[in-house]
Amino acid sequence: MSHTAELIAVGTELLLGNIANTDAQMISQGLSQLGINVYYHTVVGDNPQRVRQAVDIARGRADILITTGGLGPTCDDLTKVAVAQAFGKELVYHEPSAQRIRERFAQRGTPVTENNFQQAMVPEGCTVLDNDWGTAPGVAFQADGTHVLMLPGPPRECAMMFRHRALPYLQKLSDGVIASRTVKTFGIGESAAEALLRDLMNALHNPTLAPYAKPTGTELRITAHAPTREEALRLIAPVEEQVKAILKDKVIGVDVDSLEEVCLRLLKDRGLTVGTAESCTGGLMAKLLTDLPGSSAVFRGGVVSYTDAVKRGLLGVPEDLLAQHGAVSPQVAQAMAQGARSALGCDLALAATGVAGPDPDDRGNPIGLVYLALAWEGGCQVVPFRAGTQAERERVRRMAAWTGLDLIRRHLTGLPLA
Amino acid sequence: MSHTAELIAVGTELLLGNIANTDAQMISQGLSQLGINVYYHTVVGDNPQRVRQAVDIARGRADILITTGGLGPTCDDLTKVAVAQAFGKELVYHEPSAQRIRERFAQRGTPVTENNFQQAMVPEGCTVLDNDWGTAPGVAFQADGTHVLMLPGPPRECAMMFRHRALPYLQKLSDGVIASRTVKTFGIGESAAEALLRDLMNALHNPTLAPYAKPTGTELRITAHAPTREEALRLIAPVEEQVKAILKDKVIGVDVDSLEEVCLRLLKDRGLTVGTAESCTGGLMAKLLTDLPGSSAVFRGGVVSYTDAVKRGLLGVPEDLLAQHGAVSPQVAQAMAQGARSALGCDLALAATGVAGPDPDDRGNPIGLVYLALAWEGGCQVVPFRAGTQAERERVRRMAAWTGLDLIRRHLTGLPLA
Repeated sequence: MSHTAELIAVGTELLLGNIANTDAQMISQGLSQLGINVYYHTVVGDNPQRVRQAVDIARGRADILITTGGLGPTCDDLTKVAVAQAFGKELVYHEPSAQRIRERFAQRGTPVTENNFQQAMVPEGCTVLDNDWGTAPGVAFQADGTHVLMLPGPPRECAMMFRHRALPYLQKLSDGVIASRTVKTFGIGESAAEALLRDLMNALHNPTLAPYAKPTGTELRITAHAPTREEALRLIAPVEEQVKAILKDKVIGVDVDSLEEVCLRLLKDRGLTVGTAESCTGGLMAKLLTDLPGSSAVFRGGVVSYTDAVKRGLLGVPEDLLAQHGAVSPQVAQAMAQGARSALGCDLALAATGVAGPDPDDRGNPIGLVYLALAWEGGCQVVPFRAGTQAERERVRRMAAWTGLDLIRRHLTGLPLA
Repeated sequence: MSHTAELIAVGTELLLGNIANTDAQMISQGLSQLGINVYYHTVVGDNPQRVRQAVDIARGRADILITTGGLGPTCDDLTKVAVAQAFGKELVYHEPSAQRIRERFAQRGTPVTENNFQQAMVPEGCTVLDNDWGTAPGVAFQADGTHVLMLPGPPRECAMMFRHRALPYLQKLSDGVIASRTVKTFGIGESAAEALLRDLMNALHNPTLAPYAKPTGTELRITAHAPTREEALRLIAPVEEQVKAILKDKVIGVDVDSLEEVCLRLLKDRGLTVGTAESCTGGLMAKLLTDLPGSSAVFRGGVVSYTDAVKRGLLGVPEDLLAQHGAVSPQVAQAMAQGARSALGCDLALAATGVAGPDPDDRGNPIGLVYLALAWEGGCQVVPFRAGTQAERERVRRMAAWTGLDLIRRHLTGLPLA
């Protein structure tokens, strides 16, 4: 049986344009994976009558209703109240949720204000969706042929609650299973990937193949529908191989989260350590390499050398090199990487020096030009990266840092660095 | 007379979660500035019947209807067709629009395919909103007491069309303006802030006061409606003072973006430089301090000392201190800050050493415990920070880094550090 879901986001901040409704995007992606149709999203403010009206309209045209936001103490839990009323349900006190709220505040070491306990009131007979990422529990129930799920609004909480609480609930409603594998790339845009894969995409029905532009790189999701997970994965496998064969060295992994993860695993597997020397990226490469647990096994340390004095003093970049070529030069990038290797005592050292903007540097180097260098025992290679002169500071830094990490991946997998 | 607008976004890509509805956010911000209420956003797919249904619902509860998307040849201009039908209007050929389409294709040097001329069909008697940023013209008309505006969907086109075409049209409809000021805090949660401000919030009508939980700290937005911007700001001023008096040293600024921005301005104003020494935050403090343009005027550099060897070698942390107290200790935090001050040659140095998780350290320090230290000429203070033992690695790092930056703010504004 095919299901239709409708999303209702509750939050005046959405109607004021303070934030975009990214919860709806995230949930829609998940529902699309499950083969559940979505025909409408609605956004409504923190107003009980209007929430009620939105619910009444939605239940007339969908059999799964998912609300986001309007839980928690600051909005008087208005979504829960309005939805419970719409379905003729009483709110009842849920002691385990109250206990979780107490514990959460105790961990933080802050006193619980009374308004927080309102969050422990839930519609009678519902399934409570424990919230391990915030204080407001989610709720799921079925009434009058409609499945209702209520999730908190803050995007991270909502994403975790959807993935770990709502998805398992929804999976039970669909027949067969949907499985997917995601081929993660770096260094190729969505439209370029789509152009290369178009014929394959058009020829496929089950599994399907769809590109997604993510800030960290284009993802290709292969999704199959089958009676069992094993069968779905069997359908996916040959398509995964085809995608890899077409996108070649742009593929950084399958079902991996990030380039950082790929780099850390490669370094661990090979028993190598890494360090960083950063100018324009200002610590971002070190931050990315230490984002994941277990990074201390491979990451030794980093130097953020924002001034020439620090480049000389901590990284031993020769003064005449700086004077002759300037801080933004292949020569200085190489000296930074080699200096970091010796100062930090690591096997590989990654360096970045460039112009993040908003202005070109005083030697006329354009915004967005970054020299990346990777030093290893017995070698060092410099790779220029150009984000484009129109790129914003944040993008220059981010793309340069990732391009730097990609040098580690390429070096450790025997690919040419540039 | 007060107006109510409703936004309808047309596009299956929104319902599949390929993109977020950022057009709605952008338009809502603009409408809020005009004092036009927005009670609902709706997203609907490329389906004429459902677009028609959304329009019929919206016109019953708003007097301004703004659609985005569903114009242009790839969707058969379905929004225009559905909206025109809903209001009983014929579509008529608009030669100037056809001419613009011809010219646009001529500029690109590509032939015009016949389906493009469908875009030159507009509802009879409408105002055509010329599109200088794409091929599909926008449309505005009034019928049965409702103002209808249709804008193209691609975000940049939509933003330009809204700013340069829709806003001038809407400005004629609205009386008065809305102005707002945002008091930004650090170190106080949304519900704690709300508890302190509840009486004030309840007593206010114009201006209104509302808390917003942002990852960077709770914001209090004060919004006033008045005939002119000056009068609105005059209404806001005393409330702003009351909020500041209640939240005291938690207030980091008004209409500021971030703690980073506040720190950089304070450092610049006082002609001071800063550097960092980071263990568990792994470069994040340096990254934050260099996120903003102009940071090179105050930020000298940083050391990410992920190992004891780097703490000794680059920061000069004494070996016996590490052996006696362990890397996660007030003593080592202090030595790191003082060592960074001298190694980096900066006026202030900020250090962090702690346990980001997911495991406690080998001396039994709990997850989430971070010692922060700020060193300045003639002084150094260590402040312990506890994120809670359940906090995720990412949160520990982020909160510790911001708490570190807050030490800079507190030091430079004469507040106690702890």
